[in-house]
Parts: sequence; C-alpha cells; structure tokens
Amino acid sequence: MKVAILGIDGYIGWPLAMRLMGRGHEVVGVDSLYTRKRVSEVNSDSVTPILSMEERIKKAEEGGLGKLKFYKGDVNEPDFLYNVVRETKPDAFVHLAEQRSAPYSMIGLKQARETLMQNIGGTLNLVYAMKDIVPKAHLLKLGTMGEYGTPNIDIPEGFFKIDYNGRQDVLPFPKFAGSWYHWSKVHDTNNLMFANKVWKLKITDVMQGVVYGTETREIKKHGLYTRFDIDEVWGTALNRFCTQAVLGYPLSAYGKGNQRRGFLSLEDSISCLTLGIEKEPEEGEYRVYNQFDEHYSINELTEIVSKRAKELFHNEVEIKHYPNPRVEKEEHYYNPEHSKLKELGYKPSRSLPEDIDTILRDVNRFREKALELKKVIEPKTVWEKSKGLAAN
Amino acid sequence: MKVAILGIDGYIGWPLAMRLMGRGHEVVGVDSLYTRKRVSEVNSDSVTPILSMEERIKKAEEGGLGKLKFYKGDVNEPDFLYNVVRETKPDAFVHLAEQRSAPYSMIGLKQARETLMQNIGGTLNLVYAMKDIVPKAHLLKLGTMGEYGTPNIDIPEGFFKIDYNGRQDVLPFPKFAGSWYHWSKVHDTNNLMFANKVWKLKITDVMQGVVYGTETREIKKHGLYTRFDIDEVWGTALNRFCTQAVLGYPLSAYGKGNQRRGFLSLEDSISCLTLGIEKEPEEGEYRVYNQFDEHYSINELTEIVSKRAKELFHNEVEIKHYPNPRVEKEEHYYNPEHSKLKELGYKPSRSLPEDIDTILRDVNRFREKALELKKVIEPKTVWEKSKGLAAN
Repeated sequence: MKVAILGIDGYIGWPLAMRLMGRGHEVVGVDSLYTRKRVSEVNSDSVTPILSMEERIKKAEEGGLGKLKFYKGDVNEPDFLYNVVRETKPDAFVHLAEQRSAPYSMIGLKQARETLMQNIGGTLNLVYAMKDIVPKAHLLKLGTMGEYGTPNIDIPEGFFKIDYNGRQDVLPFPKFAGSWYHWSKVHDTNNLMFANKVWKLKITDVMQGVVYGTETREIKKHGLYTRFDIDEVWGTALNRFCTQAVLGYPLSAYGKGNQRRGFLSLEDSISCLTLGIEKEPEEGEYRVYNQFDEHYSINELTEIVSKRAKELFHNEVEIKHYPNPRVEKEEHYYNPEHSKLKELGYKPSRSLPEDIDTILRDVNRFREKALELKKVIEPKTVWEKSKGLAAN
Repeated sequence: MKVAILGIDGYIGWPLAMRLMGRGHEVVGVDSLYTRKRVSEVNSDSVTPILSMEERIKKAEEGGLGKLKFYKGDVNEPDFLYNVVRETKPDAFVHLAEQRSAPYSMIGLKQARETLMQNIGGTLNLVYAMKDIVPKAHLLKLGTMGEYGTPNIDIPEGFFKIDYNGRQDVLPFPKFAGSWYHWSKVHDTNNLMFANKVWKLKITDVMQGVVYGTETREIKKHGLYTRFDIDEVWGTALNRFCTQAVLGYPLSAYGKGNQRRGFLSLEDSISCLTLGIEKEPEEGEYRVYNQFDEHYSINELTEIVSKRAKELFHNEVEIKHYPNPRVEKEEHYYNPEHSKLKELGYKPSRSLPEDIDTILRDVNRFREKALELKKVIEPKTVWEKSKGLAAN
C-alpha cells in the first residue's frame, strides 16, 4: 500500500514510517520541520539525539527498510499539498502535520491564531486534495482524547445514542476542549465529519491519549531515535517528570494532581495506527477510535516515576505541587470507552510502569543533553493570562 | 450604553444601528465593506437602493438619530481591531462581521478557506481584544440555527441534560452543520464557550433563523434602506422567490421542497438583538438564544409567495423544482426550542405571510433594478462538486 505520512519528522511520524516501511508499504513523507523550529525557539531540543530527515532516510535505507520519498513543505499551502498528492497518489494518508502543543496555543493571540489556522487549514486542504485527486483514498487523522474534556458521563467512541424529550437519535458526542490546540482538533473532527458526509471520503479519526516512551522495535533495531521533548511548551508532563527524576530534581506537578488522562506507549500507538491503515474503513465510512490503554492521574505518575528512579539510580526525588496554569477540573469522573481498536485485532503490548524504566535509562544515557536543557523544565505558561497583541 | 456593531454595513447591521441610536445608545460601527465587494463580484447588487456608509451616517444624523463613529477595516486584522477597541472601549459588541453565505463557502477550496479563516479569525481577535482591554464588556455574537442541523430530536437552546449509561451531565448540544459557512459558526460557538470558560467573558450566542423583510420602523421613517440580495450566492431563497414572483418568472425550488427552517422578520430580529444588548448576561455568563418565530418548508414559502403575487399583481407564477445542490435531508423532524428570548420579554410583532406583501411591494417599487439583475436568480452552485484548486 502507498501511505503518505504528513508530519513524518515528528515524535510519532518517524517511528510510524519505519514500521510501515518494514511491513512492505511504500511510504511518502511530508513535513515542514515546524516542530524542530518551534522547539529551538524556546531554547530547547530533543533529549534523544535525532538525525536530519536526509540522514534518517539514508540510514533507514542502509538498514534495509527501503526508499522513502520526502517532500519538505507546509500542508497549509494548497499548491504544495495538491502537488504532492498529484505526484504520489497515495492509497492512504496519516495526517500528523499539526501544531501539537496545548501550552503553545495558550501563550497569546498570535499563537492561538497560528494553531487554529494551521491545523484547520492543513486538514481542509487535505480533504479537498483527496476529493479532487484520490477520492477513494483513506485518511487516518490524529485527534486527541482531549477533545472530549472531562464530562460527568462515560465517553463513547465518537457517537452515542441520545434520548431527549421522548425521541432518539445517534449524534456526535459533544466535545469540550481545554485549550485552543485541543479546540483546533475538535474543529478538525467536525470538518472531517462534514467532508465524509458531503464527499463520502473514507476517514478514521483517532482520539489518541498521551503517548509515552522512547522506544519501538524499529528504534531499537536501527538505533534511529525519535524526538523526546521535555520543555514546558513542547514536552509532556511525564517526559518532564522522568528527566527531573534522572537529574535528581523535584518533580513539578500542577494543581492537586488528581487530573486523570488516558495513556499508551509509543510502541502500541504505532501498532494501532498501523492496524488502522491496514484495516481501512468501508467505502464512505467515518469511524472514530478512542486510542489509549490505561488511565493515570498526575499523582500516580509522579509516584511511579519517583519509585523507579529510586530503584534504578538511588535518586530520592521529592514531588512539588505548583498552581495549575490550566483551567480544568482537578477532580472528575473519567471513563472513556475504548473497545473498537481491540475489536479490530489490537492487543496492548506494554504498560506504563514497565516502560518508565526504559525511558529513565534512555534519559540517563543522554544525561549530558538533559543537563544542558535543565532551564526548560521549570513551570512557566500561565493560561488565564494568555497574552493579546503583546505576544505578537 | 456604548455599543460597537461589527459588520454595521450589512443587512442586519445597518437597521440595528438605527434602532440602537434611536434608543439613545452611542454606536460605533466597523465594517470592511466585504459584502458589497463580494456581491458585485458575482455581478449582482442590492435590489433596494443602499447608500454608502458616509451617506448613511450623514442622513442618519440629519434625521436626528445622532452621530456614529465608523471604522473601515477588517476584524480579522488583530492590530486594526485592537486599535478600535482601545480607542472606543465599548460596553457591548454585536459581532455580525462574518462571511455569511453558505453557497459561497461551498464554491471551492479558496472560498472554504476564506470563510473558515475569516470567521474564526475575527471572532478570536475579538475575544482576545475584549479580555485585554474591556474584560467586563458583553459580546452578542450572531450564530445561526443552521449550526444544529436537523437532528431527529428536539433542539434545545445551546445546552441539554444528557442521561447516558446511568449517569447525567449538562452538555452543549451536538451540532451538525451543512456547509463550511455553517461549520464556521459552529467553530465560533465552540471558541466562544471556551473564551467564556477561561476568561469569564459575558457572551450571548444567538442562533438566528432566516431573516426576511425590507422594512423596520427606522427604515420606514428615515427611508434609509438596508440591502436586499437576491442572487444565488448572497441572497436567500425567499428573497429570490419574491423577486421571481414580481417579475412573473417561475419560482425555483430545490429538491422536493420539504426542507424546513426557522424564520423571523427583520423588524423582530432587530428587536431581539436590541433586547439582548439591553438585558445583558450576568457576570461570567454564557447564554444561547434560539431566535426565530415560525418555521416553514420551501413548499409553504413558494405557495405563500405565489398566492400573494397573484393577489397583488395578478401574476400567475409556476413553481419549478430543481435538483438540490445541498447535501441535506429533504424530509426531517424539526422542533427547536425557542422560549428564552420570550422569557426575557420579547414579543413577536410580525408574521411571514403578512410581511411578504411589503417585500413584494418593495421589489416591485425597484422593479427596474430587479430586471437588471434577472440573470443572477438562476440556480448555479452545485455543492457536491465544490471545486479544489481550480477555483483559486
């Protein structure tokens, strides 16, 4: 199958490319190298050493994974994207080419506009290019579990049956996101539902939980790391905790730490996405998968990380609580359904407590880099104070 | 009260300005004159004669309505909008400054992008400017009943109580719009809910039905017409039917004609918006009004219009059905709730069948203009065929 990965240079994009190539698929890669640029702008970097796209492609080929055609450019440019689709005519698209940081989207008006315009614009260009050039192709789009927010009821996979005033209908589950980034994904989901309705495009919308880990089978085999961000803007809380634990700094938790989210390992995320590509939807189908394996609260994460750091490195790290910059419920019900990927054949292979050891060992391996970056793991972004024009 | 009307040059903006000025409010007007430009691009024009903004302001002042400060510019330009808000510091904003045509948004990728970026961008700039400069001000934003689509259950006003798997929550009603334009309004609504949550802005989101009519008290008194568009792209079906009936052409209905929508008169729309401004929400409140008085199907509209044209002008017009360019249910349940404006004190003053006579007489009065424009009332836009790059 010919698969175009938009956002191939990212955390998930690169290991997914290796997996798909290893399974005999022809991979086309697209990226503007946006994340590298934005991460360097906050004086940060990946803790794991990542090669340039050119070097990655060369090493992958030398490692026997085959050739990869790469297009450098922005999916939010209609002419660029149309040109890629016309030249390559993929059977499937994996769309990961979005601004992916919630804190970045909350810095100020400029960043909020950039996030909304970039993400909505890229997805819109893609559905038009598909309709015009490859209307039978499949689009697998990365959404986020954060689209749902934290309602006081179970969260279904996309749609649910409603009983209201004595009548019934099956409707999209009402979303309530917590940042402009998360809302941009809600808007994308809505636009995709419409593109499916009006042009019958085959679409899989994946509501993914927080992905953790430094390793997949291919990363291990070929030694071709994917990025691992730890700063306040582009890293995840878990990555920051692991780095703080390795360096012996206190773990910085926001709020009371009872906020609960869904998680899955990078290895399992790649397996799910590969499964979604290989078992494509029916003609004209729009399907939604909630993609996560376990849920943890911030307090559970800090506890696991501090215990493992003690065991592995004899580091005794304390846990410090800071005022929560996010406007979110700190105590809430959380029960999202997630059975559809399992029905498709997915079996989780890892669990978070086991994988923490691998992450801690990898961070420790690149301890010098982590030490260089120690300034970026201090809490900064205050969401209610999201700046107006001053941040332009 | 000082009220800024964004989109003051439009169909609703201008009569609303006259109403608010007449009631002693200080009005600030903002407009990029976007609609005049886009309507002329499809070789059309308002059937009613409309003056330039400068002439309107002059005549309104001569008529005793007071002074109006007008800013020409685009609310999607952050610097322009921040400057207006800083200079004027309004107590309330009425935001009508959006691309308002569903058919336009469906012409092709260029127009879809323009609609989404323009509408989302302008609203985002506005909530940031409010937060930064006038955080206690009230925003009354024009949404559309079209955000809801046509679910098989009652449509509440914004939120409803859900019972799912034995647990309850009150959540936003899930929207399902039928064009990129309508989706842009859904995205705005979502962004406004978030701006309210994160910054406690006071917001009224008005889900308005189709507005009809050529007359308000002030238009009649001062002879200062608002625009009346009849073309396929910028006019409404009812405006087109009325013009076809006056000219003795067949009325062109899409599909079987059983699609049902909510309607209200221009006079009553202006009354509702004025009421919403004068009775503002509580501090930190986000409220949603469904604003329409009656609902009609396309077949009921063509029947009313053809009967009245026969009575008034002895025109016998036939009704022709064309394939429906929209992807929409042609037979559906439709029962939106709309009691909250009435609870606020709103009383409808007109009904559609009575107002049709006024519209027909006004179109007949400007019959020469209508004849000039006869080419633009022929069916054209085909939605499934929404163009890609070709339309750039």
